[in-house]
Amino acid sequence: MTERTMHLNAFLMNVGHHEAAWRLPQSDPAANEDIRHYIELARIAERGTFDSVFLADSPALRTDVGQRPATQLEPTVVLAALAVATERIGLVATASTSYNEPYNLARRFASLDHISGGRAGWNIVTNATAEAAHNFGYDELPSHSERYRRAEEFVEVSQRLWDSWEDSAELGEKSGAWADTDRVHEIDHRGEHFAVRGPLNVTRPPQGHPLLVQAGSSEDGKNLAAAHAEAVFTAQQTLDEGKAFYADLKDRALRLGRDPETIKILPGIVPVIGDTEQEAARREVELAEHVVHGYALQRLSDTLGVLLTDSDLDRPLPKDLPGEDGIETAKSRYTLIVDMARRDNLTVRQIIHRLSGGRGHRTIAGTPEQIAETLQHWFTSGAADGFNVMPAVLPEGLESFVDHVVPLLRERGLFRESYSGLTLREHYGLSRPANRFTRDRRAAGTSGS
Amino acid sequence: MTERTMHLNAFLMNVGHHEAAWRLPQSDPAANEDIRHYIELARIAERGTFDSVFLADSPALRTDVGQRPATQLEPTVVLAALAVATERIGLVATASTSYNEPYNLARRFASLDHISGGRAGWNIVTNATAEAAHNFGYDELPSHSERYRRAEEFVEVSQRLWDSWEDSAELGEKSGAWADTDRVHEIDHRGEHFAVRGPLNVTRPPQGHPLLVQAGSSEDGKNLAAAHAEAVFTAQQTLDEGKAFYADLKDRALRLGRDPETIKILPGIVPVIGDTEQEAARREVELAEHVVHGYALQRLSDTLGVLLTDSDLDRPLPKDLPGEDGIETAKSRYTLIVDMARRDNLTVRQIIHRLSGGRGHRTIAGTPEQIAETLQHWFTSGAADGFNVMPAVLPEGLESFVDHVVPLLRERGLFRESYSGLTLREHYGLSRPANRFTRDRRAAGTSGS
Repeated sequence: MTERTMHLNAFLMNVGHHEAAWRLPQSDPAANEDIRHYIELARIAERGTFDSVFLADSPALRTDVGQRPATQLEPTVVLAALAVATERIGLVATASTSYNEPYNLARRFASLDHISGGRAGWNIVTNATAEAAHNFGYDELPSHSERYRRAEEFVEVSQRLWDSWEDSAELGEKSGAWADTDRVHEIDHRGEHFAVRGPLNVTRPPQGHPLLVQAGSSEDGKNLAAAHAEAVFTAQQTLDEGKAFYADLKDRALRLGRDPETIKILPGIVPVIGDTEQEAARREVELAEHVVHGYALQRLSDTLGVLLTDSDLDRPLPKDLPGEDGIETAKSRYTLIVDMARRDNLTVRQIIHRLSGGRGHRTIAGTPEQIAETLQHWFTSGAADGFNVMPAVLPEGLESFVDHVVPLLRERGLFRESYSGLTLREHYGLSRPANRFTRDRRAAGTSGS
Repeated sequence: MTERTMHLNAFLMNVGHHEAAWRLPQSDPAANEDIRHYIELARIAERGTFDSVFLADSPALRTDVGQRPATQLEPTVVLAALAVATERIGLVATASTSYNEPYNLARRFASLDHISGGRAGWNIVTNATAEAAHNFGYDELPSHSERYRRAEEFVEVSQRLWDSWEDSAELGEKSGAWADTDRVHEIDHRGEHFAVRGPLNVTRPPQGHPLLVQAGSSEDGKNLAAAHAEAVFTAQQTLDEGKAFYADLKDRALRLGRDPETIKILPGIVPVIGDTEQEAARREVELAEHVVHGYALQRLSDTLGVLLTDSDLDRPLPKDLPGEDGIETAKSRYTLIVDMARRDNLTVRQIIHRLSGGRGHRTIAGTPEQIAETLQHWFTSGAADGFNVMPAVLPEGLESFVDHVVPLLRERGLFRESYSGLTLREHYGLSRPANRFTRDRRAAGTSGS
């Protein structure tokens, strides 16, 4: 094996990332709320020695519920179920900093880290939809910058809570003390959004802190990622865009005093695998034929802030778009679509077909060899530390990736043959964070125990 | 079997309800954060065909962390793990209405109900400690009545969210719609504490609503229970007190228009089981000998609002207590202790020994026959619909109850031989709640689909 190897995350969503996947004959339209479906998927990914599985989330019902499966089990409880149904694979879930309290969420992720033996990860999101805001007392979505200020403070509080128990502060001495209270700390946080005294009522997580993941690509999102993220799920369509994003984010981390090696960048890919190129292409066409255009048009209109109708389908995008600054939600997604459309001269219909696969993530249709080749090229060209694998159809797309692409990556020395570590941090080659209270206590020259 | 049979809940806490249980030679002092411990306990309870297991909670570190295991995994994620490790037993957890958002919590319990196939229950608490308040932005604990007003509104919002999807509104028709949006409803709640638009992004739970449990015994607590609870965990020391509480709560429910049969009352009992009376007594003594008096004195002082010291140990309680109205937290616990002490002429030392076993719940030490006899007596005398079983030491106390007491209850026709239902509501003999939106729609004469 070469020194540097790839990291693979399996992004589990519904019966697949293609919006029409649920309409295929083999798909179970109720699988999105069936825990057995997620257990099956996690076990397939674990068989493929993936670093982790990932569940996205938003605390609101999607507006397209008439058109496709739009409900979703709350991801942290799903991860807890997966923790006892698997042994080694990492378990990552999205949770919102806008609509949770840090004490509750830090505790839930600490608990997941204990339950899984150090395999928990948190994808930090602020949530960009008015629908979510309406479920939490807001008349409208808080502004982008306000949400990110709250996120920054939320992460800081969470890290302090995870550190509020120093390592091994639990003594369990039956003749004496259960804990060394000199090594259990109030955090006494008072900030713009939160006042939290602590300590946490869960001991320090096995990983120190659960793995921190970030996925937004706006300026605020990239700054949050550079400051805190250890894995970044991103979406670039071309190798050049991938390299530019990669270099930019590593550079931002470096300027904040971090080792760029400690932030792993995983572009999303939607593999559509066939034994031959023709079979892969046939699968893409089958999926596209199941897309409902009226609904896709409406969704694209919402994202771009313009009204598109059937008569626009075979035309390029209108020229009078609002621009990224003119929209409040999902800015990076807006820009990704506009750039892709202009670069490749796409009609609205072509945009819809591209987006239906992976919502802006790169679709790679081809043979296992072609897919492995593309991944290797991105990985060795400075565009990726690994990939966020988003199968178009689940479970079959994940099974096919594990059985046919993973062996090729292993042959090329690009991916592990088996797990060498026990924790998610170990899978990603990341160290366990030092405890800030231990550091401060040692700096002050007190022994504490 | 007779018509009416008992309901049994296993209250899982740490390595047992006796505060000194963790100091016994056989106890693992780290079990409180070990998911395997809880899985073992849930499987023992399921082998005994218990209706449910239960995890209590408070979102703050207990102040006695030096003296005994005081950390606790967040219970909803623990229940999710138990859901996939068991098949039939109900899964109940405490969650706070003071420090959660109803959209998040209603969704998490709906998800647990889906994951477990209809076995989830929620013990509604407001939380009575300043320590918890300090973790959520409050300088001091909100008042008792303010907390209960918020709880009332929280439950109302949660029920509406669970109903926001009518039954079978998910169609899964691949040729047409995934959901019938005429049967998916915004709830448009705007109240004193919450503004929640909905709908929930999880379909209606298999049970309609998760089972609602309540455990407070203050006036506000009893009123909340009478209005909403379907199972009540309570603490009475004597049969007369048990009968009075039972009659009072059933009467309150009746006056609110409920069938008293739909609210199951389960007094807590701490069984200490021996093959002989002498062995049971020896176990009680062994546990009492492991209690640390200094710490117990401090805790009793906090609860009663007076300062007790070593010199008070062999005296009765002082006469100048503040009275229930003079304290803000855990009013019913205050009254329970004072009443018990005066009734039985207890010294402070004797109070401490009684409380160390089950924090005010009734300890029954004896042979399996004696325990079964006592339970039958309470059950047939109008003091209980079943029991909240709180073993002094875990797992051994639960194992002993399942292996030695449960068979006697079965022989007497008082307890099920095997599960007849699939859901927690079916175990408790409770019906599935009607959906208020379906009712309103039918009343309005629209078909909706």
